[in-house]
Amino acid sequence: MNRRMIAYILGWVLIAEAMLMMPSLLIGIVYREESYRYFLLPMLLLLLLGAALVIRRPRNTAIFARDGCFIVAASWAALSIFGALPFYFSGSFQTIWDCIFEITSGFTTTGASILSDVESLPKCILFWRSFSHWVGGMGVLVFVLAIAPLAGNRSLHLLRAEVPGPVVGKLVPRVRATAKILYGVYSVLTVILIVLLRLGGMSLFDSVCHAFGAAGTGGFSVKNAGIASYDSAYIEIVLGIFMLLFGVNFNIYYCLLIRHAKEALKSEELQWYVTIVVLSTAAITINVFSLYQNFGVSLRHAFFQVSSILTTTGYATADFAQRWPAFSQHLLVMLMLIGACAGSTGGGLKISRLILLVKSFYQEIRHVISPRAVRVVRLDGAIVENETLDSTRVYFISYILIICVSTLLLSLDGFDFTTNLAAEIACFNNIGPGIGLVGPTGNYSAYSAFSKMLLSVNMLLGRLEIYPILIVFSRSAWRK
Amino acid sequence: MNRRMIAYILGWVLIAEAMLMMPSLLIGIVYREESYRYFLLPMLLLLLLGAALVIRRPRNTAIFARDGCFIVAASWAALSIFGALPFYFSGSFQTIWDCIFEITSGFTTTGASILSDVESLPKCILFWRSFSHWVGGMGVLVFVLAIAPLAGNRSLHLLRAEVPGPVVGKLVPRVRATAKILYGVYSVLTVILIVLLRLGGMSLFDSVCHAFGAAGTGGFSVKNAGIASYDSAYIEIVLGIFMLLFGVNFNIYYCLLIRHAKEALKSEELQWYVTIVVLSTAAITINVFSLYQNFGVSLRHAFFQVSSILTTTGYATADFAQRWPAFSQHLLVMLMLIGACAGSTGGGLKISRLILLVKSFYQEIRHVISPRAVRVVRLDGAIVENETLDSTRVYFISYILIICVSTLLLSLDGFDFTTNLAAEIACFNNIGPGIGLVGPTGNYSAYSAFSKMLLSVNMLLGRLEIYPILIVFSRSAWRK
Repeated sequence: MNRRMIAYILGWVLIAEAMLMMPSLLIGIVYREESYRYFLLPMLLLLLLGAALVIRRPRNTAIFARDGCFIVAASWAALSIFGALPFYFSGSFQTIWDCIFEITSGFTTTGASILSDVESLPKCILFWRSFSHWVGGMGVLVFVLAIAPLAGNRSLHLLRAEVPGPVVGKLVPRVRATAKILYGVYSVLTVILIVLLRLGGMSLFDSVCHAFGAAGTGGFSVKNAGIASYDSAYIEIVLGIFMLLFGVNFNIYYCLLIRHAKEALKSEELQWYVTIVVLSTAAITINVFSLYQNFGVSLRHAFFQVSSILTTTGYATADFAQRWPAFSQHLLVMLMLIGACAGSTGGGLKISRLILLVKSFYQEIRHVISPRAVRVVRLDGAIVENETLDSTRVYFISYILIICVSTLLLSLDGFDFTTNLAAEIACFNNIGPGIGLVGPTGNYSAYSAFSKMLLSVNMLLGRLEIYPILIVFSRSAWRK
Repeated sequence: MNRRMIAYILGWVLIAEAMLMMPSLLIGIVYREESYRYFLLPMLLLLLLGAALVIRRPRNTAIFARDGCFIVAASWAALSIFGALPFYFSGSFQTIWDCIFEITSGFTTTGASILSDVESLPKCILFWRSFSHWVGGMGVLVFVLAIAPLAGNRSLHLLRAEVPGPVVGKLVPRVRATAKILYGVYSVLTVILIVLLRLGGMSLFDSVCHAFGAAGTGGFSVKNAGIASYDSAYIEIVLGIFMLLFGVNFNIYYCLLIRHAKEALKSEELQWYVTIVVLSTAAITINVFSLYQNFGVSLRHAFFQVSSILTTTGYATADFAQRWPAFSQHLLVMLMLIGACAGSTGGGLKISRLILLVKSFYQEIRHVISPRAVRVVRLDGAIVENETLDSTRVYFISYILIICVSTLLLSLDGFDFTTNLAAEIACFNNIGPGIGLVGPTGNYSAYSAFSKMLLSVNMLLGRLEIYPILIVFSRSAWRK
């Protein structure tokens, strides 16, 4: 491994984090909070450490896949640990583990919280919490790539490890240009959402924070009752639609930008995505009708929850874990497992993977019926390479193995099976609320420090699509 | 498809079932029960239908893979439907759906019951119930192959669909000879177990029934409290060891018979199997120690439950679903998913598949680290073909998809998530008791008729390893 280059890039990530703390510091000053006591020391620490690492640019800038994975994993781990410091200094959290859990949940856009009363927090801390979603949604490294003077096309290895989904796709090959386009679309959509929420009567601060949560598909709210506290159909519809927009593969927006609308709409992933949303919303609307006795209200809650869960955001307008019938809860858990589109800010298995898995399944049935038939899987008309199919299948195996092992370890805390499995699924897939004790009105505070760290690692595993994190722990990556 | 040949073989299966009812009829006469009222009519029906189908041997005896799958699926479905009739006529069950559920659970060696009071049942019915495990364990078709005048080597297609596991293995190619060896080993082990249980003070009737349940890895008991009702360490240890023996790949016994003991012991699957048993028993012993406050008792319960669940038998000596700590419950659910060795009478995913999946996972990590490294997975020293790896991975995908969809459908009955998921896992993997409401002291009677049929289909899917059943429902199998 090229350790000098890894350290160099890591240095830039630390400096970037210091800069990213600036808005929170300023917000605190505006609201006359003691934000300097929470943020100044961490910023100073980050700048010093970062500067020490970037002071000399390494001569050999070549990085390979495993370096890329390592940089990504190390960056996210470092971001979470340093990002937890403002929380710790604010005194609103009980232990440093709680702080690490909360900020990891922020950067990974999970939105799982250990807090029960967020409204008592200083605004600057709430802002840092929500802002971490926005930063994490697009990926901190994409941000670094867009601004830092890195090694040109070689950074593709970084992008590959950072942008979720089975295939990197047809995005423009020049990395910095790509990063800028991605951040452009992302920022414009966020600003539009802020304006729309403001028009719905939400305060500016709340609008900004909730827009960050929706854009990053995170789900931290600044209200104890979440989005339900506004009780506004307008806000729920706007948020519901925008969460779905942020769950779309960003390639689609790129295609629309260069006026290839036809190509964009032909995307099988988009078609499945829309179909899943429509069918799930319909099924839940019917299922919860007996509860609300009103078609409009049922539809409104069903659409919002489907959008929020499928995109792995995790905002809630209804306590589905306690009040909704079993079928709706089960369906939501299924949506948690599926997740958003590849190349979006959302987490989960990703819809394109689901498509490949389902197609593999049908192909196998055909193969048993006619053993000599050629095995071919197509996506968007093109034949999917065996390499990609293999990787997708093995990814799924890893995905299920991790859920099983983590759920088993969580059970050491003694909670029930539903809670543990839901907590694992909700954290690993970067959703936030689960069912059982970790539903929308519950939180993760009851888990032990060990479980909180395990769930934090799971959030990272989910966000970075498993392998970059595992590689850091694998022996062979450290050899030679 | 060769419909005439399918009908012909199906005819022999029906005739075989009539013969298989004979012992139960006789048991009823011995115990002076009205067994002729339960069994005579179904036997007559089976013989007439069977005779009509086998009266003319088809000229074209060629069968292909899809015919084989179809025969297997149709045989098991027919066995379950006709096998339910004695239950129905006995009047001990409330609906015909309950009868079908119970006998499907018997033939598929699941052991899931809708009964709460089995001790009130006539002995002949109890015998039929347990005997179905013994018949189903080795596979009805293997039985038919051993006795019926079929189409020689062509019946290999039947064996391939019937014997569980990813690879058919190195068993002797001549089908009838294989079937006889398998039934020989199976019968000898069963007789030894009956004798050992009898020596432990169990009545002859109970010994026979429980030996059938253990041999088929079924789990129906003739006591309401199951094996716990004997409260005998000797019986538990004997049963625990024999359940494990029936969970071993029968290839191993074949190797031992032809004095290739070295080859048998080198089997990676056997090594994993033993390791899983030892580690799980140790972990549960420690975990339940706080409950029993006695190391011996903890070890005894832990070993028995691990053996019973991993082999997918489902006998219980402790109410692990209600009393055991969360960790032990979670670990047992994990063992349910894994299941016994390929080529055994047990169900589940099978340990050899687990090995291939775990190795795929490690191989992928190595691949990400060194993208140019050759991807090779070895089992027992030999390179596993890509075809086998592909099938195993897709099998796992099918396995998880079926669990997800079935659990969602079960949720329509309104029970909690743990119960539904455990019910699905316990039926699909042919275990019997799950956790939640369907634990060892619970039963499946509360589910609706729809759910009972869904679970029955799941038992067949699990027992026949998914594809034969799916192919019956797939359109393309019916074309041409």
